[in-house]
Amino acid sequence: MKIKPLGDRVVIKKIEAEEKTKSGIVLPNSAQEQPQISEVLALGEGITGDDKKKDTIKVGDRVIASKFSGTEVKLDGEEYTIIKLNDVLAIVE
Amino acid sequence: MKIKPLGDRVVIKKIEAEEKTKSGIVLPNSAQEQPQISEVLALGEGITGDDKKKDTIKVGDRVIASKFSGTEVKLDGEEYTIIKLNDVLAIVE
Amino acid sequence: MKIKPLGDRVVIKKIEAEEKTKSGIVLPNSAQEQPQISEVLALGEGITGDDKKKDTIKVGDRVIASKFSGTEVKLDGEEYTIIKLNDVLAIVE
Amino acid sequence: MKIKPLGDRVVIKKIEAEEKTKSGIVLPNSAQEQPQISEVLALGEGITGDDKKKDTIKVGDRVIASKFSGTEVKLDGEEYTIIKLNDVLAIVE
Amino acid sequence: MKIKPLGDRVVIKKIEAEEKTKSGIVLPNSAQEQPQISEVLALGEGITGDDKKKDTIKVGDRVIASKFSGTEVKLDGEEYTIIKLNDVLAIVE
Amino acid sequence: MKIKPLGDRVVIKKIEAEEKTKSGIVLPNSAQEQPQISEVLALGEGITGDDKKKDTIKVGDRVIASKFSGTEVKLDGEEYTIIKLNDVLAIVE
Amino acid sequence: MKIKPLGDRVVIKKIEAEEKTKSGIVLPNSAQEQPQISEVLALGEGITGDDKKKDTIKVGDRVIASKFSGTEVKLDGEEYTIIKLNDVLAIVE
Repeated sequence: MKIKPLGDRVVIKKIEAEEKTKSGIVLPNSAQEQPQISEVLALGEGITGDDKKKDTIKVGDRVIASKFSGTEVKLDGEEYTIIKLNDVLAIVE
Repeated sequence: MKIKPLGDRVVIKKIEAEEKTKSGIVLPNSAQEQPQISEVLALGEGITGDDKKKDTIKVGDRVIASKFSGTEVKLDGEEYTIIKLNDVLAIVE
Repeated sequence: MKIKPLGDRVVIKKIEAEEKTKSGIVLPNSAQEQPQISEVLALGEGITGDDKKKDTIKVGDRVIASKFSGTEVKLDGEEYTIIKLNDVLAIVE
Repeated sequence: MKIKPLGDRVVIKKIEAEEKTKSGIVLPNSAQEQPQISEVLALGEGITGDDKKKDTIKVGDRVIASKFSGTEVKLDGEEYTIIKLNDVLAIVE
Repeated sequence: MKIKPLGDRVVIKKIEAEEKTKSGIVLPNSAQEQPQISEVLALGEGITGDDKKKDTIKVGDRVIASKFSGTEVKLDGEEYTIIKLNDVLAIVE
Repeated sequence: MKIKPLGDRVVIKKIEAEEKTKSGIVLPNSAQEQPQISEVLALGEGITGDDKKKDTIKVGDRVIASKFSGTEVKLDGEEYTIIKLNDVLAIVE
Repeated sequence: MKIKPLGDRVVIKKIEAEEKTKSGIVLPNSAQEQPQISEVLALGEGITGDDKKKDTIKVGDRVIASKFSGTEVKLDGEEYTIIKLNDVLAIVE
């Protein structure tokens, strides 16, 4: 199944950042210091069809979203978040 | 009886996703991990009559709506939800 | 006495839906499962005088309004509700 | 002293509806079932000077206002309420 | 010192209404039934320089303001209130 | 160090008003009855570059600001407040 | 990794102001009296691409931001804050 976001929404999927402490223990994301970085999977037509917005973000970008924003959705065992473009704070390059 | 939504509202009906655990037990929707997917039954003229909106969604689409949105209505024994287009997050294909 | 709503308001009157259980008991509206359906008695000039709104609703329509909206008014022993057009969710046909 | 409302405000005065129970007891307004009907005493220039509003209401109309709206004012022993036009729900004819 | 209000603000000063009970006792304003009437001392340029507003109110007018609005200011022993034009309900003539 | 406010913000500095009681005691500002008067030190380009705003206020004006507005900042031992123009109530002349 | 802010957002990094008390103790920032001054590291296209905004702020400026605004982000051991331009109060020169 594929999720096609409506309006100016973005579908993102958290990238599990592996952070090893010096002792080699892999820290779960939450305990890590790294911010939650996610990958952009799909963009609504409210973005791709808008000249002012379409060049600001693209599928595959790694982004930081504002905490507690959007709706978590689980589909076929995978977890996604559907958020508004306005909740995407920055792209990490 | 038929429900004709007003303005930019959408009438949706929850699709009871059957999820069988390995042991064959059918999980009620709430306990399932799948997001609540609903089918679009009717669209208000605020959508079908608006060039910017009419192509974004159509009757029969399977959608994910934001939780706790809209008004639940029971008519002739069937349960429907009347929500605003803005509360439809995505179409599932 | 007649109530003439101002602006984009609508005067509606609840239709007492008679629902008989199998044993013939008439259920009071609240206990029924049916949504509260009301009849449109009057429309403000903010609707009848507005090209975009005047064709969406007419006197005599049976409608579903969002719960807890509008102001209840009792006049000459009859109960009416004065609500905004935006609180009329759908027309039931 | 005369009250001249500013902007789109209306000065109204409650009409003491006399409601006699069958036993002849005159019910005070609050205990009555009748909605609070008031008379329009003055209109601000934000209404009389506005083509879209000036014909919707006039001095002398009997109106129903939304509860708990406006500011109560007592002048020379008389009680008035100064409310916004938007809080006038309907005219009673 | 003189207070020149900015924007669409008004400087008003409460008029101590002397109300004598039949027994000749002068009631302090608060205990009186009269509404708080104030005199307009100064108008901001957001009013005097605005064609739609400048004729609605003038220095010297006696006005009723909505309760709990504006900022109380004491200057050289005198008490003033600085309020927005929108908080002036009516002029008393 | 100099503070250059952004947008339509104003940098002000409280003027310590010396108020002597009859017995000669100098009252600290807070205990005084005088309103808090401040001096304008700098204006953002959102004011100086805006034809409608630039003539309403200038550096050196003594102003009354609405209480609890803006952000207090201490720089090189001096205390300043950065507030929005909209929170400047009046100029004291 | 580099953070590219979206829209009218700004990436800033706190400048650890070293403040020595007379006895030579270096005060941690929080205990200091100095306001939190930060350096601008990156500007969103909502600023650099907007004629009205692009000249108000530039990378390298030292700024004061309103407290409790923006989202803290830690990347590769460094702490950044992503805030809206509207939360940047002033530039310190």
